Amino acid sequence: MITLIEMGKQAQAAEQQLSQLATVKKNQVLKTMAKQVRQASPEILKANAIDMQNAEKNGVRKVMLDRLQLDKERINSMAEGLEQVAGLADPIGEELKGWTTEAGLDISQVRVPLGVIGMIYEARPNVTVDAAALTFKAGNAVILRGGKEAINSNQALVTALRRGLQTEEVSVDSIQLITDTSHETATALMQLTDYLDVLIPRGSAKFIKMVVDKAKVPVIETGAGNCHVYVDEGADLQMATDIVVNAKTQRPSVCNAMEKLVVNQAVAAKLLPMVAEALKPFNVDLRGDERAKQILPEISSATEADWGTEYNDYIMAIKVVDDLDQAIAHINRYNTKHSEAIITNNYAHSERFTKEIDAAVVYVNASTRFTDGVEFGFGAEIGISTQKLHARGPMGLNEITSTKYVVRGNGQVRK
Amino acid sequence: MITLIEMGKQAQAAEQQLSQLATVKKNQVLKTMAKQVRQASPEILKANAIDMQNAEKNGVRKVMLDRLQLDKERINSMAEGLEQVAGLADPIGEELKGWTTEAGLDISQVRVPLGVIGMIYEARPNVTVDAAALTFKAGNAVILRGGKEAINSNQALVTALRRGLQTEEVSVDSIQLITDTSHETATALMQLTDYLDVLIPRGSAKFIKMVVDKAKVPVIETGAGNCHVYVDEGADLQMATDIVVNAKTQRPSVCNAMEKLVVNQAVAAKLLPMVAEALKPFNVDLRGDERAKQILPEISSATEADWGTEYNDYIMAIKVVDDLDQAIAHINRYNTKHSEAIITNNYAHSERFTKEIDAAVVYVNASTRFTDGVEFGFGAEIGISTQKLHARGPMGLNEITSTKYVVRGNGQVRK
Repeated sequence: MITLIEMGKQAQAAEQQLSQLATVKKNQVLKTMAKQVRQASPEILKANAIDMQNAEKNGVRKVMLDRLQLDKERINSMAEGLEQVAGLADPIGEELKGWTTEAGLDISQVRVPLGVIGMIYEARPNVTVDAAALTFKAGNAVILRGGKEAINSNQALVTALRRGLQTEEVSVDSIQLITDTSHETATALMQLTDYLDVLIPRGSAKFIKMVVDKAKVPVIETGAGNCHVYVDEGADLQMATDIVVNAKTQRPSVCNAMEKLVVNQAVAAKLLPMVAEALKPFNVDLRGDERAKQILPEISSATEADWGTEYNDYIMAIKVVDDLDQAIAHINRYNTKHSEAIITNNYAHSERFTKEIDAAVVYVNASTRFTDGVEFGFGAEIGISTQKLHARGPMGLNEITSTKYVVRGNGQVRK
Repeated sequence: MITLIEMGKQAQAAEQQLSQLATVKKNQVLKTMAKQVRQASPEILKANAIDMQNAEKNGVRKVMLDRLQLDKERINSMAEGLEQVAGLADPIGEELKGWTTEAGLDISQVRVPLGVIGMIYEARPNVTVDAAALTFKAGNAVILRGGKEAINSNQALVTALRRGLQTEEVSVDSIQLITDTSHETATALMQLTDYLDVLIPRGSAKFIKMVVDKAKVPVIETGAGNCHVYVDEGADLQMATDIVVNAKTQRPSVCNAMEKLVVNQAVAAKLLPMVAEALKPFNVDLRGDERAKQILPEISSATEADWGTEYNDYIMAIKVVDDLDQAIAHINRYNTKHSEAIITNNYAHSERFTKEIDAAVVYVNASTRFTDGVEFGFGAEIGISTQKLHARGPMGLNEITSTKYVVRGNGQVRK
C-alpha cells in the first residue's frame, strides 16, 4: 500500500502543475469531472450499496444512514456542484495590494494557492466531491480522508474524479484519497507537516476537537456555534419574534442556528409570550432563568450547563438581562465566537454590540442563519471558521488561498 | 506563583478592554510606556548586569553576550521604538470589504485584534519591548516568554511597561511576562489552547522547529531562509554582481541574506569571475558544482548537503544551469520559500520566475535583502512568515490582526 509520505510527495509534484493551470483549463477539468461522475453512476451506486449494507450490519443510526445513502439524484447534484464551481470566479492571480517603496521597488501582493490541503471528515460522501471541486478550483492539491463507513462510495467517486483529471491530462495526484481508514493513518495525516500546508476537518464539534488536539499540521477549525439573539429595549417585537423563530427552527441541527435568547427586562414581559406562542408549532423545549420563568411559568429551569451548550436541536434557553452591558457580558462569556445578533432600534446600542461582541459574524436585525458562504455571496462554502487565524467566518474559495509578494526592481540593493 | 491558566484568564479579561481602546488612547499609552522605560534605566541596567554576570559564569558565547547586553543607548532606542509604534497607523477598525447580499443585508468585513498572543523567544531583551509595543498597538494582549539568560532584564523592562499601562489606567495584564523559565512552562504555554489565539516564536531555525513540533496553539512560523539569486542569460552582469554582493555580504547572518547563486551557463564564464573578484574583500567561502569549478578552479566543491543549507555566514554555493527551467526546478526543490530573485532582462522569463517560484517574496532585479517590514513600508516588523497560512512574508501590524463580519439588516430571515 502507498504510504502517506509518498502521497504527500505526489501531491506536491501535482501542485507544481496545478498552481500554474489557466482558469479556462481548470473550468474545463471541472466540467469533465462532472461528466465522469455522471457516467460512473452505476459503479458509484454499487459501491454505496456495499457501504449501506455494512453500515446496517454495524447498527449505524438511521440519521447517519440517510447521510450515507446515494441515489441517482444525489449523484447528479454532486455533478452539478462541480459545474457550479467551474462557474465561480478564479481567486488565483488576483492582485490584493500594490505600491512602490522608498527604494523604488514595485511590490504587488497576489493570490496564490495554499498548496496541499488535507481534508478529514466523517460519513457524508458528498463532502468528497465538494472539497475536491473547491480545492482544485483554488489551485490546491488535496488529500482526502473520509469516514470508514463511506469508504467504498468515496473510492468510486474519487476514481471518477481522477478519470476526469486524466482525460484532461492534469496530474491525477491533484486529488488523492486515503483508503486505509485506520485511526493510525488519520493521526499520521494530521502530523504530515512536511507535505501538508493546512488541514481542514469537517464533522461534529467532538470530532473537530479531536483533530485540533492531535494535529501538528496547521488546522482551520470549523463548526461549533452556541449562537445568541439579544432583544433590546425598544426593539420591534414582531421582527424579534420572526427572527427568533427563523434562527431557532429553520434548521436547528446546523451551527448557525440560534441556541439562546437574551432579553432586555424592559421588553421581556411582552416578548416572551409572543415567542413562546410562535414557537409552539415546532415543539421547542424552552428553558428559562428565574426572571424568564416568572413570565413563562410553564417552562423548565435553565441550569449553568445550558448557557454553554450548543443543542443543535429544538431546545432554547432564555436569559433576562438588565441592560446591554449584561447582555454583552453574558454573550462574550458563553458564546463560541460564531454568530450573534442584536434586535434593536437604538443606533448607539447597535454600534456597541457589533464592536464589543467577539464573534466571526455579528448581526443587527437579521437571523443568525445567514452565516453561510452561499448566503454571503461566495458561491460555495468549504466550512465556517471559528478561529481568528487565517480565515474567520464563512470560507469560500478566497479562504483556501495564500499570497505571495512579487517585487520588481531595476537593480536595487539595500543600504 | 501564578499559573499559566490564571495568566491566560487575565490576558483575556484585559483583551476585552484593549480591543475597544481608541487609537489616541493607545498612542498615549505607548508614549507613557516609553517615558517609564527611560525613567527605569537604572533598574534595567542593574537587572541586566545580573544577567550578564550569570551568562559569563555559565560560559555563554561572546556573540550571545553582545545580544544580551544593554546600555543607556540601547534602552533609549527601545523607548524610541515605542514612540515610533505610537506613530504608526492603527490597523483596528479598517473596513476591508463591504457589499450588499441578495437578501439585502449590508456586510462589512472589519479588522479586529487577534486576541491573546503568546511570544516565545531567545536571548535578546529588545524583543520584549518590540513585541509588546506591536501587539499592544494592534489591540492584542500578550504573554511573553523570553530566554532564561535575559530573565532579570525582561522583568525590569516589563515592570516599566506595566507601570506605563497603570499610569494610563489600562489593564496591566495587557502585557504579562512568564518568570518561570523552565522548559515545562514553555511547553505548557505552547499548549495553552483555551487562552492563546496564536503563538509567535522568534529565534534560531532549530528553536522554531522545536516550537512547531510541540505547540498545540496555532503557530506563525518565522525565519528560515535558504535564498537564491538566479542570473539569467542576457542579464546585466554588473547589476547581477552588485546584487549578489549586497544580498550575500550586507548582513550575512539574517534570514533574507542570499545563500546560493544559480547561473545560466551562457553567462557563467563571464559572471563568475566578476562575482569572485567582487566578493574577495569579504572573504566569502565559495563552493561550486562541476561547471562552476571549471570556471573558478580555486573554489571548493559543493556537496548535496550544501544546496539545502542556510549558512547565515560568509559562505555561498554556486550552481550552473542550462536554462530557466532547470533554475526554477532547482530553486523550488531546495528553497525554504522565503525570498528568491532573478536577474534578467527577458520579460517572459521574469514573468515565469515570479509565477512559478514558490516563495513568500519573489524579486526581479533586486536584492533579497529587501524582505523586511520596514523596507516594505509597514513601519515595523514582528517577523517574516515562511508559512502560507494567515500571513506570508514580512509581518507588520496588519498581520497580527483578525477580521469580523458585521451584518446590518432590517428584519431579514432565511428562506
